[in-house]
Amino acid sequence: MTSVLVTGANRGIGLGLVRQLVEEPSVAIVFAAARNVDTAKDLTAISSPKLHLVSLEIVSEESIARAHAKVSEIVGDRGLDLLINNAGIFNAYRLAGAIDKAGLMQQFEVNAVGPILLVNKFHGLLKKAAAKKGFAQIANITSALGSLETACEMSAPMPTALYAMSKAAANMLTRKLCVEFREDKIRATSFCPGWVRTDMGTDAAALSLEESTVPLAKLILALQEENNGLFYRYNGEAIPW
Amino acid sequence: MTSVLVTGANRGIGLGLVRQLVEEPSVAIVFAAARNVDTAKDLTAISSPKLHLVSLEIVSEESIARAHAKVSEIVGDRGLDLLINNAGIFNAYRLAGAIDKAGLMQQFEVNAVGPILLVNKFHGLLKKAAAKKGFAQIANITSALGSLETACEMSAPMPTALYAMSKAAANMLTRKLCVEFREDKIRATSFCPGWVRTDMGTDAAALSLEESTVPLAKLILALQEENNGLFYRYNGEAIPW
Ligand SMILES: NC(=O)c1ccc[n+]([C@@H]2O[C@H](COP(=O)([O-])OP(=O)(O)OC[C@H]3O[C@@H](n4cnc5c(N)ncnc54)[C@H](OP(=O)(O)O)[C@@H]3O)[C@@H](O)[C@H]2O)c1
Ligand SMILES: NC(=O)c1ccc[n+]([C@@H]2O[C@H](COP(=O)([O-])OP(=O)(O)OC[C@H]3O[C@@H](n4cnc5c(N)ncnc54)[C@H](OP(=O)(O)O)[C@@H]3O)[C@@H](O)[C@H]2O)c1
Repeated sequence: MTSVLVTGANRGIGLGLVRQLVEEPSVAIVFAAARNVDTAKDLTAISSPKLHLVSLEIVSEESIARAHAKVSEIVGDRGLDLLINNAGIFNAYRLAGAIDKAGLMQQFEVNAVGPILLVNKFHGLLKKAAAKKGFAQIANITSALGSLETACEMSAPMPTALYAMSKAAANMLTRKLCVEFREDKIRATSFCPGWVRTDMGTDAAALSLEESTVPLAKLILALQEENNGLFYRYNGEAIPW
Repeated sequence: MTSVLVTGANRGIGLGLVRQLVEEPSVAIVFAAARNVDTAKDLTAISSPKLHLVSLEIVSEESIARAHAKVSEIVGDRGLDLLINNAGIFNAYRLAGAIDKAGLMQQFEVNAVGPILLVNKFHGLLKKAAAKKGFAQIANITSALGSLETACEMSAPMPTALYAMSKAAANMLTRKLCVEFREDKIRATSFCPGWVRTDMGTDAAALSLEESTVPLAKLILALQEENNGLFYRYNGEAIPW
């Protein structure tokens, strides 16, 4: 029976994933991590014995250590089977426009450095689960905008450059995890949730939350060794790097 | 006649590029930028009327503004033809080992955020040159280690993950510049200098400084529209994203 931790679980895609994960028969424990669990009304509204709320600010090493301690306490020697790095931000800047360095740095901090801190801290728990079950999994929710191959195909210049840079970096994390964590039988895979109606995706987006997160949750739970180190859309379509 | 600015010019590949650029007949002005021009002995040893030393710390907006003012003063309405983002650092961490957040952040600050700050500030001068000459060029010295496609091919796990993430981000900058600066006729191209005997490359590296920087300088000066947004080795070989 699978244990899962989802970051940024209080709203948007993280919330949608948690809602689906608690419904999945193969999932036993869902750690829904959010910066502020006290105000996470949509999370507390989910009534499931599988659900554990965890306070987690992904760019704070102290917060990560506290979340890790809480998760360890609950899973013990079974370890953690699945870590979903979902929390993210979109800071929009045009490369020729007004920019501020703090905003640039924050984009990399949340979307690239946070996931490194998390995989680093949870490595031991993932390894424990992998030793028991044969494998553990990291799922990095990046974005098709992080694809270098397709990055120039946009017909109009859009202020996605900085976000795309941070997501390309996050995709490289998937690739390097596939090398560095392979021996421990911990796999990593990148996903694009599609363009989804969340605070980030806006109301103009193509997909409802459920249209993305229901298939995405199922896809993540069904990952095999052959998917290690690769990049998929929520519907299972492969995305080029 | 071409004007060029090279960052990180006091040692290593930047120094090698400057040495070659001042020899090139098509080049009129070389701005050799370094954090500390007073101690840049190898730069001051180059005797060429084309050479201008510029103090530049690429992660400081104030320093960039001062360097920009100095360059503006010299090139005036002719603008800047070529900006070579070469300065970079390599912070080695294993994803499962001891890490510190400051070191992770610094890797992105220097290799990804610095180049954004530079292209942003020098956009106007590049645009001026492009309006006069038909095009201007940005060359981002990234690394083949930043290639997502080949990232899993390493046989042994090596602590290149963080550096590779920052260079994948820098490659995405090239791709997005190709979209966002196209209208202004400013092109961008990524380059890997090869594995070179510098402080970063170490003595174990395959190439001498000149074996990399002589062809690399010539390659950059010969760039055409068809090379816009692409990624090459110092010898002109294409690298996949
Ligand atoms: N929506 C789309 O169309 C789309 C498309 C492609 C990729 N994505 C990716 O999908 C993921 C989720 O996006 P979304 O649309 O659900 O975004 P969202 O609606 O803006 O929600 C972002 C979530 O991330 C959390 N978060 C942000 N910074 C955090 C930090 N420092 N520590 C902990 N949590 C943090 C937020 O928590 P707070 O409530 O505390 O801020 C929130 O729970 C992101 O990685 C995004 O880049 C989204
Ligand atoms: N050598 C290789 O095998 C190799 C392979 C692939 C890619 N590269 C890339 O090639 C570029 C040059 O590498 P290298 O081998 O010449 O490295 P290096 O010998 O370590 O020199 C790095 C240069 O960057 C400068 N620099 C670092 N941080 C800076 C900052 N914040 N502001 C301004 N300048 C800064 C350094 O200045 P200080 O002297 O003041 O520190 C120095 O001039 C880098 O982008 C590197 O990633 C190198």
